[in-house]
Amino acid sequence: MPSCVWLLALSLAALTGNTAAAVLYEKSERNCSLSPPYLPSTAVNTTLQLQELRERMRPLNISAYIIPGTDAHLSEYIAPRDARMAFMTGFTGSAGTAIVTPTKATLWTDSRYWVQAERQLDCNWELEKDVSIISIAEWLISEVPSGGEIGFDPFLFSLQTQENYNLNLESSNRSLKSIPDNLVDQIWTARPPIPPDNIIHLPDRVIQRSWQTKVEDIRNQMKDNPYEPTALLLSALDETAWLFNLRGNDIPYNPFFYSYTLLTMDQIWLFLHTDRVSEELKMYLNASCEGPLCVQIQEYDTVRDVLKEYVARPGIKVWIGTEYTNYALYELITPEEKLLTSSYSPVLTTKAVKDETEQRILRDAHVRDAVAVIQLLMWLEKAVPSGKETELTAAEYVNERRRNQKDNRGPSFETISASGPNAALAHYSPTKETTRTLTVDEMYLVDSGGQYLDGTTDITRTVHWGTPTAMQKEAFTRVLMGNIEISRTIFPSGTRGVNMEMLGRRALWEVGLNYGHGTGHGVGNYFGVHEWPVGFQGNNIPFKSGMFTSIEPGYYKENDFGIRIEDVAVIVPAQTKYGHNYLTFDTVSLVPYDRKLIDTSLLSAEQLLWLNNYYVTIRKLVGPELDKQKLKAEKDWMLKHTEPFAASGSSTSVCSSSLTLIAMTLTLIHNIN
Amino acid sequence: MPSCVWLLALSLAALTGNTAAAVLYEKSERNCSLSPPYLPSTAVNTTLQLQELRERMRPLNISAYIIPGTDAHLSEYIAPRDARMAFMTGFTGSAGTAIVTPTKATLWTDSRYWVQAERQLDCNWELEKDVSIISIAEWLISEVPSGGEIGFDPFLFSLQTQENYNLNLESSNRSLKSIPDNLVDQIWTARPPIPPDNIIHLPDRVIQRSWQTKVEDIRNQMKDNPYEPTALLLSALDETAWLFNLRGNDIPYNPFFYSYTLLTMDQIWLFLHTDRVSEELKMYLNASCEGPLCVQIQEYDTVRDVLKEYVARPGIKVWIGTEYTNYALYELITPEEKLLTSSYSPVLTTKAVKDETEQRILRDAHVRDAVAVIQLLMWLEKAVPSGKETELTAAEYVNERRRNQKDNRGPSFETISASGPNAALAHYSPTKETTRTLTVDEMYLVDSGGQYLDGTTDITRTVHWGTPTAMQKEAFTRVLMGNIEISRTIFPSGTRGVNMEMLGRRALWEVGLNYGHGTGHGVGNYFGVHEWPVGFQGNNIPFKSGMFTSIEPGYYKENDFGIRIEDVAVIVPAQTKYGHNYLTFDTVSLVPYDRKLIDTSLLSAEQLLWLNNYYVTIRKLVGPELDKQKLKAEKDWMLKHTEPFAASGSSTSVCSSSLTLIAMTLTLIHNIN
Repeated sequence: MPSCVWLLALSLAALTGNTAAAVLYEKSERNCSLSPPYLPSTAVNTTLQLQELRERMRPLNISAYIIPGTDAHLSEYIAPRDARMAFMTGFTGSAGTAIVTPTKATLWTDSRYWVQAERQLDCNWELEKDVSIISIAEWLISEVPSGGEIGFDPFLFSLQTQENYNLNLESSNRSLKSIPDNLVDQIWTARPPIPPDNIIHLPDRVIQRSWQTKVEDIRNQMKDNPYEPTALLLSALDETAWLFNLRGNDIPYNPFFYSYTLLTMDQIWLFLHTDRVSEELKMYLNASCEGPLCVQIQEYDTVRDVLKEYVARPGIKVWIGTEYTNYALYELITPEEKLLTSSYSPVLTTKAVKDETEQRILRDAHVRDAVAVIQLLMWLEKAVPSGKETELTAAEYVNERRRNQKDNRGPSFETISASGPNAALAHYSPTKETTRTLTVDEMYLVDSGGQYLDGTTDITRTVHWGTPTAMQKEAFTRVLMGNIEISRTIFPSGTRGVNMEMLGRRALWEVGLNYGHGTGHGVGNYFGVHEWPVGFQGNNIPFKSGMFTSIEPGYYKENDFGIRIEDVAVIVPAQTKYGHNYLTFDTVSLVPYDRKLIDTSLLSAEQLLWLNNYYVTIRKLVGPELDKQKLKAEKDWMLKHTEPFAASGSSTSVCSSSLTLIAMTLTLIHNIN
Repeated sequence: MPSCVWLLALSLAALTGNTAAAVLYEKSERNCSLSPPYLPSTAVNTTLQLQELRERMRPLNISAYIIPGTDAHLSEYIAPRDARMAFMTGFTGSAGTAIVTPTKATLWTDSRYWVQAERQLDCNWELEKDVSIISIAEWLISEVPSGGEIGFDPFLFSLQTQENYNLNLESSNRSLKSIPDNLVDQIWTARPPIPPDNIIHLPDRVIQRSWQTKVEDIRNQMKDNPYEPTALLLSALDETAWLFNLRGNDIPYNPFFYSYTLLTMDQIWLFLHTDRVSEELKMYLNASCEGPLCVQIQEYDTVRDVLKEYVARPGIKVWIGTEYTNYALYELITPEEKLLTSSYSPVLTTKAVKDETEQRILRDAHVRDAVAVIQLLMWLEKAVPSGKETELTAAEYVNERRRNQKDNRGPSFETISASGPNAALAHYSPTKETTRTLTVDEMYLVDSGGQYLDGTTDITRTVHWGTPTAMQKEAFTRVLMGNIEISRTIFPSGTRGVNMEMLGRRALWEVGLNYGHGTGHGVGNYFGVHEWPVGFQGNNIPFKSGMFTSIEPGYYKENDFGIRIEDVAVIVPAQTKYGHNYLTFDTVSLVPYDRKLIDTSLLSAEQLLWLNNYYVTIRKLVGPELDKQKLKAEKDWMLKHTEPFAASGSSTSVCSSSLTLIAMTLTLIHNIN
């Protein structure tokens, strides 16, 4: 069994070090320079599909065809039926671009996936490693004859992607050709169907605003817009789902369904696969009429036709969010006077601020989610020394614990369960081939989350069951300091996350450490776990009260260990001595950090106070839930791990006035318990 | 005397409060609704120039003519001969746009200048207050008939300005018409001439890189650019001055001279007013030959002709920095293949990093500059209680002290000397009409700087000679905390200022305070006091070792007081425990802060340590200079004001481990002195 060979290779590699591993790994990757070429059994024979695709290309007179890895809604996760790149290449990584010419086939993917690509591609494919569109365009210019056309499916291109290709092909005498009828779909006879699951509407208990209220709100924003749009086109899957309080099951980890919406002042067109719409849903959507609050249900595939017909009317102007609209719809909205663009649609910016009910239930979901993570951590503490548990069994354990929580709807992303050096790899999730046995000698990082009917969660904890090194302890403490510094900061409403995120890095910078990823992203209410445009990135919108974001600094030592401490927090008003309209964060993830890894002598008095207050909150909110679920051992574990910290005995870096405050906190804690 | 009336008004206003002031102020502003209109004596009669301009407009068939307030080099300060807006309108504020149509004349300026405009405009002019180009374009659309053309001088438009007008006039059937021969200049018979001063080259003692070395360096950057430019066009005045180590005297406060440079791989064309070039300068520039290191001196006004001729050659590509190139030159570079743009030219980004000599002499200039500011502060402490000193006399005093320092070349900007409520006004400089008498009952802010042959300085100190309120003390301390937090932070090379500048605000935010201006800007070596693109703004380039920037948080309480603490710092390598390529700031402004305004109980141990270390540095560097200048009283004053701070007696917020560090510092201080 090939997977056994891999396991063996990995085990041996672990025993014998890198050199042996390199020799053994070779066999798991293709070698196209041998004659005949060596292909591992994981490689996929793509000769047939390439031949068929080229046959479809010929009558269209195109010299190349681009196959992106995304879907028509530019989704972060895609459904199996959208895995066209995987079908054509065999490569199943989550990011990449494939291009086929009459004689060549090339895949571009980034460094995370180079090994995986060498295992999955056959020798029909070349692998290119510079994934910038500049570099792909250079390749196209060298492979496509002058005057040649390059076909692409405009449904799978964002406006930015199209513009980047155009810019880089400019004045090269090669041009893009939009082919809305996807060529891969034409040859993919075994393409997975649309899931049969019905689309559901959310129960009243998790809803504050009816879809009618939301439609009115969005229409008011259209009315208030000085450019006077007559219609709003919604393309991102969570836009339509949010507007109508609907959920589906088309995309892994995301409760979305294929859809578009075209909303005008007096009509609503909802595009979806109509055979999944129950009679009850039609009633809910008021689908039998044509008034301003009647939803006219249209077949998903007719969106281009309906939009084209609408754009042809005089005096109209269609508002789109450029980040999530595909080129197939965008290219229909001409002339320019009929188009109004903003980076994000008003639905996305409105959704970013949760209403009171959404805030309450999202907090509730985090309480139950904390129970599942506490169960995992308690179990690991006990089970790991036996030497039988692995990254995979731990991931399964936490997924199972979440499944037992009320209203759970599965994980919100593939659990990252990573021990020792695996935790230093970006985007690592364990597989049968890579899973490490958990030991008291390595740090362990678990980044996981759940979908609940009332909310989406995302939390990372890093632990050590043995004796951490001084460097591990220092790095962990400094990551924690970063998390706390962001969490406790007070800032004026409207401050952008990108202008504060250095607080997450500053304690690391002080000793010359850093991390190579972002510091946080919005989260949804039973929606995407990465819910943009909220967060700490450069293109995120300013913070307002009621937004939820993750806060997740980290530190990664290559080939050694990885640390990340991730919590979700809600932005809340802050009371200040002199000002108004100031905000701060209130952490809603409620799981204690590994005490063993905290060097309290590094913490400022304010940081220690924040930490102890956070632990008071965990006790107050998770304690009763553990009681309710009759989890006595877990309650004891939680109490033990949320004992208040005193200023470190050996350290005197905590100010005595702050010690007074801490003492007051401790009194409070003891009063509560 | 009208100025006496104003003085009277102001004095009475001070005595009687706002209502009386409002009544009296009216007389100093025009009232065009009266019949006949009331005009104060400060208003300028513009009837004649308007009539003459309209006569020039007629044959050109333009329906409007735009008169911006800038010069052809998009300079921050302009020479009197470029004050076309002031000549046409009477309004002398530093920001505004005037537009003349056959029947109307309108000035746009921002809120800082509304009162001044009402005093200086006559009733030929309307004042508009929304200075956005959107709003100006709306006005143009309403005033210019359909099909009409709007004239503008392309030398006075940045690319961005031109694009903004175009964008906002788009599809309105009104269009811009480029008229390179300025219409105002044609009628401005008394236009001030070019100053007769010769252009000088810097002495060897302030130079590390000869102009030949700099030219080679820039040519290497052109060679390395993948877009293969054949020429570089320099338009900002400090670009040419830097490249050839030249200085002039054309612009107030800035040692610049009118110039452009066109640099190719084998030729150099320098455009300037050739009658100011001495024989010695011609020798220095190697002006008698045509080789790659010979400077071909061309008349300033021929730049368009020479550029046009160059662009007509085959296979050329001209590199420009879009931020400082005017539209008159940009529009000549067609077709698009002949143009290469970046926001800033390689000269500006290279100049941003000072070489070792520049760093050393810029530090030196700050030592002498500190002496002048210390002289001012000491004198004020003694003189203010007498009640005879004013904002104006204080400004004159510090300007005079600077003038006495070696290599001084005058102030680097108009001194801001502001007492009480005046300090809360943005961009305030005292005039005869507004100057307040300094008293022990008000806070006083002085923001001033000098030009020296070896450097440019910019420093702000805020002081109180009596008893500050608790709120003043808290606000001052929190502004200081912001200054220190930025100054002491350690960050990876390449971090952008905009992502750290919240450190300057955080201590204020904590209590709901903030400030409405930027947090710092680059400074030059005998150059502009605002030397972009270094600084903390969104469009500034990432920090590198060797850059100089101001750090200047503040707090302003309307109608009450203003606080700003501004120092210049150089970015230097930081030693860290684990990392490489980390940087921090080293403050080169060397004047103590007002001790009376510092509440040490608010400072963290690290902040107090930084402050005491800074004071050690002041003693070490300014002490010997005061000795050298035989300023015994000033030395004593400096020593008294740089006494080390202990942790505040009444406060215990300083950690004892840090107290140990402070104690060590104190020992060090006593050893030094």
